[in-house]
This record gives sequence, C-alpha cells and structure tokens, in this order.
Amino acid sequence: MTTKTVQDLNVLGQAARKASRTVARLSTDDKNRVLLNLADLLKSDQAGVLAANQQDYQEAKSEGMDESLLDRLLMTEERLNGTAEEVRRVAELPDPVGEVLETTNLPNGLITSRRRVPLGVVGSIYESRPNVTVDIFGLCLKSGNACILRGGKETIRSNTALVALLRKALADAGVTEGAVQFVDNPDRTLVDAMLKMNDYIDLLVPRGGADLVKFVAENATMPAVTGGIGVCHTYVDRAADLQMAVEIVHNAKVRRPSICNALDTVLMHSEVAAEGLPLIAKKLTASGVELHCDNRTLSILGPDAPVTALPASEDDWGREFLSLTAAVKIVDSLDDALEHIETYGSGHSEAIITEDEAAATRFLDEVDAAAVYVNASTQFTDGGQFGLGAEVGISTQKFHARGPMGLKELTSYKWVIIGKGQVRP
Amino acid sequence: MTTKTVQDLNVLGQAARKASRTVARLSTDDKNRVLLNLADLLKSDQAGVLAANQQDYQEAKSEGMDESLLDRLLMTEERLNGTAEEVRRVAELPDPVGEVLETTNLPNGLITSRRRVPLGVVGSIYESRPNVTVDIFGLCLKSGNACILRGGKETIRSNTALVALLRKALADAGVTEGAVQFVDNPDRTLVDAMLKMNDYIDLLVPRGGADLVKFVAENATMPAVTGGIGVCHTYVDRAADLQMAVEIVHNAKVRRPSICNALDTVLMHSEVAAEGLPLIAKKLTASGVELHCDNRTLSILGPDAPVTALPASEDDWGREFLSLTAAVKIVDSLDDALEHIETYGSGHSEAIITEDEAAATRFLDEVDAAAVYVNASTQFTDGGQFGLGAEVGISTQKFHARGPMGLKELTSYKWVIIGKGQVRP
Repeated sequence: MTTKTVQDLNVLGQAARKASRTVARLSTDDKNRVLLNLADLLKSDQAGVLAANQQDYQEAKSEGMDESLLDRLLMTEERLNGTAEEVRRVAELPDPVGEVLETTNLPNGLITSRRRVPLGVVGSIYESRPNVTVDIFGLCLKSGNACILRGGKETIRSNTALVALLRKALADAGVTEGAVQFVDNPDRTLVDAMLKMNDYIDLLVPRGGADLVKFVAENATMPAVTGGIGVCHTYVDRAADLQMAVEIVHNAKVRRPSICNALDTVLMHSEVAAEGLPLIAKKLTASGVELHCDNRTLSILGPDAPVTALPASEDDWGREFLSLTAAVKIVDSLDDALEHIETYGSGHSEAIITEDEAAATRFLDEVDAAAVYVNASTQFTDGGQFGLGAEVGISTQKFHARGPMGLKELTSYKWVIIGKGQVRP
Repeated sequence: MTTKTVQDLNVLGQAARKASRTVARLSTDDKNRVLLNLADLLKSDQAGVLAANQQDYQEAKSEGMDESLLDRLLMTEERLNGTAEEVRRVAELPDPVGEVLETTNLPNGLITSRRRVPLGVVGSIYESRPNVTVDIFGLCLKSGNACILRGGKETIRSNTALVALLRKALADAGVTEGAVQFVDNPDRTLVDAMLKMNDYIDLLVPRGGADLVKFVAENATMPAVTGGIGVCHTYVDRAADLQMAVEIVHNAKVRRPSICNALDTVLMHSEVAAEGLPLIAKKLTASGVELHCDNRTLSILGPDAPVTALPASEDDWGREFLSLTAAVKIVDSLDDALEHIETYGSGHSEAIITEDEAAATRFLDEVDAAAVYVNASTQFTDGGQFGLGAEVGISTQKFHARGPMGLKELTSYKWVIIGKGQVRP
C-alpha cells in the first residue's frame, strides 16, 4: 500500500503489530529460510536494485549532493554482494528468542525463569545508506520483531526496490509479508506522526546525523536508541609504549574518519610529550590530518615542524570532527585526563595507551563510556568486531543496551512461573 | 539544604551527579556497612520517626484522608522493624556492580567483556508509604547509584525524619551523604522541574497511583519505569484441577486486593463452567467479593445462588479493580481466552490453571506479559518472591527491565576491551 496520510501510517502500524505476533513465534528455520532467500535475491535480482539506485544517485548528483553523501547513497554489485553476505551471517547467528536467561527453583516449589522474547515492532528512521533497509530487516526478523522502515527521500527508489526483495524473500518462505512495513512516502510530516505511534512501535532506531538522532530522542513517545555520536579520546599515558601509541592514534583517526568511533582528541601525558608528540603528529600529518593543538603542544611541535598544527579553540574540545582533523592536548596526570574526558566526552569510546596496569585499571573503572579500551584503537567499537554478528546501531545511553546493539539487544524477556497450585501466604 | 526553587533542585541534582561517581566505586563492604548502620538506626532511633509520622497521620486524618490511604501512611514499631529487616536482607544480596557478564577472546587477540556498572542517579517520585524512602535508598546504594527522593506532601515529616537516619547511616560509615538527595519541599512545580532534569537523573521511578505513573511516563525527559498497573486474568482451562482453581483464584483476588498483581478477571472454559463456577463464586463471595458476570456466568450461577453476582458492563473487562470485586466471563476455548487477555490485559501478570501441558505451553508462549503463570497465584509477582531480595517497582514495559526490578535492574554495563596494540584493518 501507499502511505499518503497519517491515517495510512496508522494502518501500517496496526499491520506491523499484527504481524509481530506471528514473527515472534516463527521457528529458527523459518527465519533463516527468509534470510537465505534474501541473500540469494540480493545476488540474483541485483539489476532492478542497481537501476533504481542509479536513478536516486543521478538525481541527487544533479541536485548537488556532496561527494561523501553520494558515496553513502551509491550501491554497486560489490556492495550488494557484501550486504548479501552480511544477511547470510545473521542467518548463522544463534536465535536469541526463547533463550532461558536463568531458572530458579524457589523453596515453595515454584520454578521461575526469565525467557527471552522479542520487543515487538522496531521502527527505524534513517538517511542515505540504502543497505540499512536490509540490515535492520535482517536483525529484526532474526530477533522475532516486525519492523517499520522509513528511509530518506534521496533513496526512495533504492529502498522501494530493496523492500520488494524483502517481501519476496518472506513470501517464498511462507512468512507473512507484514513482517516488514515500508513508509514509501518521504513526506516529513509522516516522520512526526511516526514518533507518536507508541501504540505500534516498541523501539525506534534513528540512523543518521546528529540532528536526526537528537530530534528523534527529544520527540519520540516510545523508547529510542540514543547514540551514534562519539567524541572519542585516546589518552597516551606516561607509561605508554610510544610506538604503539603512534599506530593506535593513527588508526583511530585515519582508518575511517567519518564514523562515530573515530578519534577526536589525543590527550598526551606531559612526561612523554616531548618524545611522543612529534612522532604522532608526523604520522597523522602524513595522512593529511590537521591538528588543533593547545599551546604546550604547539611549543613542543615548534614552528618548523613538518606538521599541520593550528592553535585549538575552546570549541575543539568536545567536538566530533568526522573528518581528518584531531585536537591535541597535553595533560599532567591521569587525573587530568580523566577529568577532561568526563567534561568533554560523549560516553561512546575512550582509550588509554599504557603499560602501567594500575593506570589501565583506573581508566577502565572510572571512565563512564559505552566502550573503554586499553592499548587498542577505538575504531573497534562495532557489533561485528565485538562478535555480535551485526548491529542496528550503537547506543550511548545506559538504559536497556549500551554500545553496539545486535540481536539480543532487540529483545526483552518475560518471567515464566510454573506452579503446582501454590498460593501466596 | 532546603529546596525552595527550581534552582535549588538543580543544585541538588548536581550534588547527586557528583556523589554518584563516588557511590559507583564504593566497595561492597562500605555499602553493606551503611545498610547495616541503617538497619540498626531504624530500630534504635525509632522514636523520632514515629513521632513525625504521628504528626503526618493526625494531620491527614483531620483533613479527611480515607482509611486505606491512612493505613499506607502509618508507621508502627512493627513496620519499622520490618523495614529494618528488609534493609538487612539487601545487605546480604550479592553486589551487582563489577560483575562480568561475558568475556570473549576475539581472533585478533582483543579480550572484550561486558562489565556491570550502576546507572548513575535514580530519581523517585512517590506517594503515601514512607518506607519507600528507605527501600529505594537501600536498593540504589547497593547497586552503586545515588538517589533523589521526592515523597508526598502527606508524609513530609516522616520522610524528613527517615532521611536524617539515611544520612547518619552514611556518615557513620564514612560515605558521602550526597548519596541521598531529598526534595524537602512538596511543591508540585518541583515535580515538573524534576521531570526535566535529564542531565542529573538517569532513571525515574514513579511509585503511586495510575495517574502519577501515567503523568511521569508522559512527561519525563529521562527513562522512567512504566508499570504498577495490573489488569490480571486467571484462565481456568477445561483441563483444570477445579479445586486448585478455586484456591488460586481466591488467593489471587483476596489475599491483598489492593495491589497491582491481584486478580481482576476470571476467564472460565465453558466445558467446566457448570461445575467450577459455583465453587469459585461461593468461595469468593464468602470473602466478600462482588462478582461482575457475563450473561452465561449469571445463568449458571442462577438467581438463587448464595453469591453476590451482578451483570458485568463492558467497562469491567480491562478494569483494575484494586478492591474486592472481580469480573467473570465464560470462554469457549483457549484461543478465546488468549484473545480476551490480549485485548484487555495490561501486560502485568496472567495465569492459566490447567493439567494440560500443551495448553500451558501455548499460554506461556503466546501471552505477552511481564509474568505468565501456570497453576499459581498471580500475587507472586514481586521482587522478594522471585528471589531478587527486594524491588524498586514492577515494570510492564519491555525496554531495559520487565517485571520486578531489583538490584541488577538498576544497573547498565560497559564494554571493556583489552588490547596489545591492535588496530582495526
């Protein structure tokens, strides 16, 4: 059906709610059959998706969309094959639904257990990357949830073509096509209406820029995943292996500067700054990174250093650069580093480089973030890298799920109590 | 300090946030010492609390508060001793903070684990029962959280006296008194302000009537526990042990009719209604229960039955009675019972009485509620009864925690990643 009005959207919400009851009780085999069908279709029926995507791409290009966004929008044979492989991997993951989390035999003979159940209906509002359509559907289905997808205006044709494949994959496995609901009208007023649909949506996952995430967090009437914004620090301790620090800082910044787990600020202990900073700065500069430095850093690097080092402004601390820019600051102690991170961090991913176990322990204990690292790149914060298979997003809130959200994080539980006639005294 | 204005409340929020960092890292021994101090003080320093409570009680009585609310407000030596024992039990519970939920050695040599951490600051807005002051504090402290307490106007003197004991218990153990923040001004505008304090409060727990819970759920800017409203069904299957059904239905309704896990509606399979209904109705009537019955139930009970049976109105289905009233309906199948529960239940506690394993399995699988029972009274839905030691409330939402919320449910987790210099390819 076509969603033209808020009424249409509610009909779609009801259909998702109804389908969610069926999806919640699908066998693992049925769910995997849908996913394997889909993986096959993403290879065999690429032509239609690629053609639709080309229309989106050319239109966006003619409207002047910038290169990095155009690149996110583009689907290629290789990318579709990659998406198909991810769907296949989700099929291989264990089914979380029905897992018994704990069982207790109470003294009165009651047997209580917590049993994992789906959340119900997961809504997602996302931008640009059309593969999100497939990713969210795959994780929702495997975790027993129906989903309502609302992609961006700029990818409406691509998403429409992909949703047709999702529906065919469902139908071919004999599973209700209601498991996926697609808002095929990119009218913005429908987003506002979606945020009010707490009767039909149990969890909302925004995927996109900081503005979208903030708008959803502030206006959704149902729980929403808050996250995807990472102001990430790497602290080079006085007991750091400096060569390791150079490699980790470089990777955390340069590997992919546009993602939320990328390094934003380097904090450097003053005792090792004179030796370490020039090494770090040189390697970053060689990869085109612009450094925004505090005064002490500038005086160590000196005016003649072969590095791009500018004075930092107050705004640079706590800024998510999402580009080849990094802030650099010298601190005099672990305490100062911890305080800086507490003041300016966003609770996403934070790292310490040190060979000192006591310093590492304090950092892990005291930094309040979704992911805390010793001697590794913050770019590892990712559902796939953490062994979750995939992720619908990265949460920086503490409620329900923190960090990468995979299959288990799309579930709730119910208490199951088996008695033999017990009454409460 | 005295909270007179919204500014004062923000100062109190900042103090809670600051204290939360200390509380999060308290040793188990320190936390238990505070709790044991408190248990002692609740016995040794009862006089002041009881005197303050008498002032609250007499004032409420003179203002015409009804008997059941007056009873909730009243503290006695026995009740305070009971509260002290509960605090002692919380001290005996395992410390959830720092628990490692899972550890994975990844192929690249990274070791990832999820480590349980406190939420931070828990706020509670509650009515009537002053022991909530002690309960929430005890659970928050043991789970490493600071708390902000805002009790009702009607118990302001009792709560003030209790908070003085909480502070003494903290100070005597050398723990920051900032761990408990008390809104000592019952002005309603401060409640509205508290709901906006998402910078300082990580979770809000409303404890009180349906109106309060609904108001908090709709207006809080931070996550809030939605729950405490139970429209609970007990379905007597055609394969039920009818004598067991009589006892369970009676207990679920009569033991304490005013709590959220109390039975509201009996659903009875038509094949056993003629035999079972008179038995159930007779036992309920003997305890003063008024029955609101569908027509088929009325015709079975007959005009001459020694029971209080009135015709049900449509409003009676889906109503939380909180009193000695129960609705009764005959259904022709398990499917009809499931459909009725899906339509009218509130997702709290639902039970089936049956000796038929297949029927029990379907009920457990298909009913979407926080607690689903076979052959037991729904009045067991309670943190203490489920082995959690205690509870801050009962959640009927699926996000974060469902059912009774004890210590673990007041925590989040962080990902801890230990590397040896790994960078992401």
